[in-house]
Amino acid sequence: MSTPNFQERLERCAFLMQAQRLDALILTKPANMFYLTGDGRLCAYAFITANGIVTMGVPKTDVGEVRQATHVHDVIGFEDEIGMIHSIAHCFERSGIRQGTVGLEYAFLPQPRMGMLIHPHAKPEDVVAADCTPLMSELRLVKDDFEIACLQAAARVADIGMEAAVSAVAAGVTESQVAGAAEYAMRQAGATDFYRTYVATGARTNIAHGVPTLRILQNGDLVMIDLHPVANGYASDLCRTVCVGKPTSQQQAAYDLYLRAQRATVAKAKAGVEMTELEQTMHQILKDAGHGEHIFGPPIHGVGIEFEESPLPAGHAFFHGEKEPPPLSAKVVIAIGNCGLYLGPWGVRVEDTVVVGHDGPQVLTNYPTGLEIS
Amino acid sequence: MSTPNFQERLERCAFLMQAQRLDALILTKPANMFYLTGDGRLCAYAFITANGIVTMGVPKTDVGEVRQATHVHDVIGFEDEIGMIHSIAHCFERSGIRQGTVGLEYAFLPQPRMGMLIHPHAKPEDVVAADCTPLMSELRLVKDDFEIACLQAAARVADIGMEAAVSAVAAGVTESQVAGAAEYAMRQAGATDFYRTYVATGARTNIAHGVPTLRILQNGDLVMIDLHPVANGYASDLCRTVCVGKPTSQQQAAYDLYLRAQRATVAKAKAGVEMTELEQTMHQILKDAGHGEHIFGPPIHGVGIEFEESPLPAGHAFFHGEKEPPPLSAKVVIAIGNCGLYLGPWGVRVEDTVVVGHDGPQVLTNYPTGLEIS
Repeated sequence: MSTPNFQERLERCAFLMQAQRLDALILTKPANMFYLTGDGRLCAYAFITANGIVTMGVPKTDVGEVRQATHVHDVIGFEDEIGMIHSIAHCFERSGIRQGTVGLEYAFLPQPRMGMLIHPHAKPEDVVAADCTPLMSELRLVKDDFEIACLQAAARVADIGMEAAVSAVAAGVTESQVAGAAEYAMRQAGATDFYRTYVATGARTNIAHGVPTLRILQNGDLVMIDLHPVANGYASDLCRTVCVGKPTSQQQAAYDLYLRAQRATVAKAKAGVEMTELEQTMHQILKDAGHGEHIFGPPIHGVGIEFEESPLPAGHAFFHGEKEPPPLSAKVVIAIGNCGLYLGPWGVRVEDTVVVGHDGPQVLTNYPTGLEIS
Repeated sequence: MSTPNFQERLERCAFLMQAQRLDALILTKPANMFYLTGDGRLCAYAFITANGIVTMGVPKTDVGEVRQATHVHDVIGFEDEIGMIHSIAHCFERSGIRQGTVGLEYAFLPQPRMGMLIHPHAKPEDVVAADCTPLMSELRLVKDDFEIACLQAAARVADIGMEAAVSAVAAGVTESQVAGAAEYAMRQAGATDFYRTYVATGARTNIAHGVPTLRILQNGDLVMIDLHPVANGYASDLCRTVCVGKPTSQQQAAYDLYLRAQRATVAKAKAGVEMTELEQTMHQILKDAGHGEHIFGPPIHGVGIEFEESPLPAGHAFFHGEKEPPPLSAKVVIAIGNCGLYLGPWGVRVEDTVVVGHDGPQVLTNYPTGLEIS
């Protein structure tokens, strides 16, 4: 595995900042900090100037670890929220920024946290704030070789988790126990974190976000398992639906249809394709089969440091503070298959993480499909 | 276990809304929705009028489950973000609210999500928005008997998780594997979710938020394990520090001191005590021993549906959009011991979840203390 070139990332960041007339960024979103510095901890910030100088502010306890783990120009420790505000003022002073524009992550910061970053004791009066959400998403959109290798490793972890989850599926166990089996195996295999693990069974396979409950699996249940491990700082997104025992012919037909739609969409994941074309491919096959009303949520989204990130389909992007995505370049990584097919008594979903390639897709998640388990 | 009295909660909510001249609330924070309706799903909202009428908006796929799981007055399904906005407009229309004030969760909503809730197509022009963060925190501050029973059950799950984590501690395993052992055991024991699991070892015990990494435990390492399971919708907060092998005399002395400070603070958790008094008790014992510079973060915070919620110490509360806490009433539940003792090469922390009682504390988490493991 190569190593990330933070210098190159910072140069691209500085270029975009200059083009958008941003004099500084204050990042607090872990994924954004991680991309530019290699460290994305909680309760911290990265102050970045338009010439690519980075200062990190972290809890005073963490200064040593951050100095070791990153190559940023300076690391400041703070004691508490007031200390953090003063340390931001110090960053402005030292970089000589007395007026201009500071970019903040509007799509990440609720008002009180935004208030800390633009507190009158932190920000010079003549500096105004602007949203840097789209800038950071643009920066992270196309993955470099190091990132593709990390995403590949995360996908292997997801495959291992799915194998453990499917092995745990049996009448009598709870949804949460199935999730536990997956998470345990993924941590054994190198995961260090998870975005939410979904396990929904029986009638709960019909809901959009099936967080695991204590519902006990019964014979004949469908089981929808959606995993999002993080390994080496990168995420994966893998969903499979299986059956406890033998599926009905309706369940099998719905599954086969959904898989066909998902596969047809995956096949189109090559450089130059529009997100809308991918979305329409998936939707049209389901609509043609009479299921236009039985889907929910966009079928495609980006995957990287976050399991769900830019590119997002146009309408969805707008409501998440993101720009409409350009045609996809090679090395954009997306999850395909998120819209589900929700038929009322149950639903099915199959989702894979895919690298958009020059000539066609490279599917990173490889756990076998199929409703029936042996 | 008794059942929650949602009618009583809604009446108290309506009373506070009237006192604060709020004509409606739109809640999207799962913990707040869960408290008032019994359902706190993602991608959903609860519209609450000042006479206590609740309408929930959820993905159209989820309508059936939410109707079954709650007693709210109506459940509306939406297709996507635009459908959600129109369904909110419908709530305003049907409740006849054309002017006045709508309460929103300012401490939870980043700008794009705030923008959806107050979109011109959602909110009547003459309705203004105001923050309802402190209102919801006040409402949830004192726990009822049902909640205390849930918190007790969550604490038992945390104890079981800690036992599994400590059993997994050995030279050669990774931090993430220790976390995995805890999470697996907690899901087996009835957990359905976790707030972040922290496992930090060796030099990493000196950092404030030790998310698990692939660092391999070595003989002589301290291991800081901080668990936050959710069971029956309620959280717990339990931290223990143990040693791989035999601790040094410095480590043992630091641990004994910290435990003494934490225990002295726990002993003061009875009705009428101020948060600042608890904080000062803990800090003063550490300061008197010369460690005023070796702590980070407030030692106390509330525990309930969230593992970290109101009451928060005054300074901290301000920066989280919360009010300064009143003297604590009986049945407020808090975690005590979060400030740590960070000595540079390593740190120690011990934290328990405690019910403030009329005459003294009721400690919910019961895993034994002690650096040495057998």
